[in-house]
Amino acid sequence: MMKAYTEMSREELQNELTTLLEEYDKYQKMDLHLDMSRGKPCREQLDLSMGMMDVLSSDMDLSCNDGTDCRNYGVIDGIQEAKELVGDMMENNPDNIIIYGNSSLNVMYDTVSRAMTHGILGNTPWSQLDQVKFLCPAPGYDRHFSITEYFGIEMIPVAMTPDGPDMDVVEEYVSKDPTIKGIWCVPKYSNPQGYSYSKEVVCRFARLKPAAPDFRIFWDNAYGIHHLYDDNQAYIPEILAECKKAGNPDLVYKFASTSKITFPGSGIASLATSPNNMEDILKQLSKQTIGHDKVNQLRHVRFFGDIHGMVEHMKKHADIIRPKFEAVLEIFDKNLEGLGIGEWTKPAGGYFISFESLDNCAQKIVHLAKKAGVKMTDAGATWPYHNDPKDSNIRVAPTYPPIDDLKTAAELFTLCVRIASAEKLLEQN
Amino acid sequence: MMKAYTEMSREELQNELTTLLEEYDKYQKMDLHLDMSRGKPCREQLDLSMGMMDVLSSDMDLSCNDGTDCRNYGVIDGIQEAKELVGDMMENNPDNIIIYGNSSLNVMYDTVSRAMTHGILGNTPWSQLDQVKFLCPAPGYDRHFSITEYFGIEMIPVAMTPDGPDMDVVEEYVSKDPTIKGIWCVPKYSNPQGYSYSKEVVCRFARLKPAAPDFRIFWDNAYGIHHLYDDNQAYIPEILAECKKAGNPDLVYKFASTSKITFPGSGIASLATSPNNMEDILKQLSKQTIGHDKVNQLRHVRFFGDIHGMVEHMKKHADIIRPKFEAVLEIFDKNLEGLGIGEWTKPAGGYFISFESLDNCAQKIVHLAKKAGVKMTDAGATWPYHNDPKDSNIRVAPTYPPIDDLKTAAELFTLCVRIASAEKLLEQN
Repeated sequence: MMKAYTEMSREELQNELTTLLEEYDKYQKMDLHLDMSRGKPCREQLDLSMGMMDVLSSDMDLSCNDGTDCRNYGVIDGIQEAKELVGDMMENNPDNIIIYGNSSLNVMYDTVSRAMTHGILGNTPWSQLDQVKFLCPAPGYDRHFSITEYFGIEMIPVAMTPDGPDMDVVEEYVSKDPTIKGIWCVPKYSNPQGYSYSKEVVCRFARLKPAAPDFRIFWDNAYGIHHLYDDNQAYIPEILAECKKAGNPDLVYKFASTSKITFPGSGIASLATSPNNMEDILKQLSKQTIGHDKVNQLRHVRFFGDIHGMVEHMKKHADIIRPKFEAVLEIFDKNLEGLGIGEWTKPAGGYFISFESLDNCAQKIVHLAKKAGVKMTDAGATWPYHNDPKDSNIRVAPTYPPIDDLKTAAELFTLCVRIASAEKLLEQN
Repeated sequence: MMKAYTEMSREELQNELTTLLEEYDKYQKMDLHLDMSRGKPCREQLDLSMGMMDVLSSDMDLSCNDGTDCRNYGVIDGIQEAKELVGDMMENNPDNIIIYGNSSLNVMYDTVSRAMTHGILGNTPWSQLDQVKFLCPAPGYDRHFSITEYFGIEMIPVAMTPDGPDMDVVEEYVSKDPTIKGIWCVPKYSNPQGYSYSKEVVCRFARLKPAAPDFRIFWDNAYGIHHLYDDNQAYIPEILAECKKAGNPDLVYKFASTSKITFPGSGIASLATSPNNMEDILKQLSKQTIGHDKVNQLRHVRFFGDIHGMVEHMKKHADIIRPKFEAVLEIFDKNLEGLGIGEWTKPAGGYFISFESLDNCAQKIVHLAKKAGVKMTDAGATWPYHNDPKDSNIRVAPTYPPIDDLKTAAELFTLCVRIASAEKLLEQN
């Protein structure tokens, strides 16, 4: 057990720093090019879905069960068997689902864009309002925040807890301020913490009484079946069902995709929502396109068969990335435990680990790692406007690098944490 | 040679009508369910691309030439070899091309939507302007008009000639009215006429001097290589090159897709434009998505090899649909020639024939056809706001039905033309 940095004398800290910098020098000479920045599946994970390239061939009928030729135009909301598969994946009735193209981010963007130009269910288009605000549980997903920032929507950070967003704050804003039009949520294995919303939090979401009739929960269930452990899976109440029970059927847009199930960029994305919202959306969607890629929908259906096939497939993903999460966490424990200079999450699913450094150290840590050849997600990226008020959050993405590289990167990362923290504490003395 | 209806006496017309209605009765009893309404490829055309299902398989490397793994995230503007193939198809430099998802209509919608919310190259977003207008060569493509109508953009019809839009009118509007922000064009084998713009028309487009700095030509080259005859192909000057020569490099957005080359809904769409416009667009696109379906891009590249492969493939399409166009035109000639009750185009490519009836007959003709089991595109659909001022244009789509069905449908259609025309002339007497 190492002595906490916070309990070291100035001299002890100075000596520690000297040792750390010598170590850092060695890493710098290794000419590393490692990347823990993005939530990308690794090659072995992608290989799991190669069978998808074989399930459709030229000697097969590419019609779906109702006889529709998937090769031709039409079917704007997706083929029935894809809705059923994705319905099981999302825990929603297929009738509440629209199957889109390859990117759920694109669906979210389009959903905000449509609200800007045409409003939601007959309400004033957001672009015609003086103020439009979103609540942003933070740290959160940078690409969510980029969308709302791009549309000039004011973003208000809300604190995240291991049970989900601080619902007292959410309820206060949503019920009193009609300029609050939405909230970004990653309810299961959240990005970046890997937190899953508690039953209470989900139910409080469903029971919100928004001041704005066009307030919507943007529920990005990106990691709905992305468990790391078969015997330690997060369960959260299904939000559409809860909203319906609470008398708020139109309150939520729920998003998902197979990007981290089959191939990122070549999967199928989907939206689940109430019949009213669906009608509203389909009016617009029929202007935007004649239909999405039904052949790829059929390919996914034939590859998985059903949700059981998909669940078995996800276990193979878990077998590949679980050791990576565990290797990183083990190195964090070994090198940082007890030093009082950081905290980190221990997710049971999803794609990220969230690291909290001492205040005002995150940028420095990321910079040090970069200088030694390890790319991390930019410090601040997990906060609206890239503005992490304490400059303390760093998102760690362990899935992509080969495990040996990952271990090297994690060792270096912890070294950078120690250097930045020691320097910080010395400055303060 | 039949006597022209316009030269018949009232009694002759009355007798003719009686005979026609007896004939119509026979069709009504046939319980037909035929469709000449949409520009859909037929099954035999789709079969031509079934080899595309075999070119990628689980034992292959799905990397592109530069080593990028097409299965993973990234490459927002498309893989290089897809840009090269599509560049050859569009007659554009690959560097001027962005490869999108499956639908060029979606690209056009998003292009208008982006102009509404964010403006073009730093100009005021269209949604903040009092008036935004588009010129709409008419008859034209209904789905173009639906997009501008959806965004509340005022549409001004411009007459179409066999050489393209009336450029005197276009130049007058574009050079004098800064609220004119765009024009919809299908420059080659136009929808619905099958007209191809003359060299002069294309050059006059390129040399426009718009009053609005954010005026753009929406150049939907949907049928760029969709010839019916190998020895009678339309050639039009390449619009990006002409705009650049004219000192107007940023004037045009050019759209295309492989929807009617491989599979509608499972092809790849693209946009070609100037470096300035591309930069403007990519800023937005990077908020909207992480990337489009690269595996499908690779699939298209491996299937065709190069543009020669695509051209050979298009000849097979032509062999299937040319007899359909010719069968319809033969029946039009046989049943309508010399009657003075309609004119129609004789396209050398594309997907449609345009029929012009006597004034105020189109709706009636389409209604009569429908009552006897033949679905046509709605009368009026080819005009902005579905408002055909003369109620005379009908779009005929011969590609989808089997040829025997098509002949039956064409016979019935000409019968409906004759009935509606005879009734019209009798009313007028």
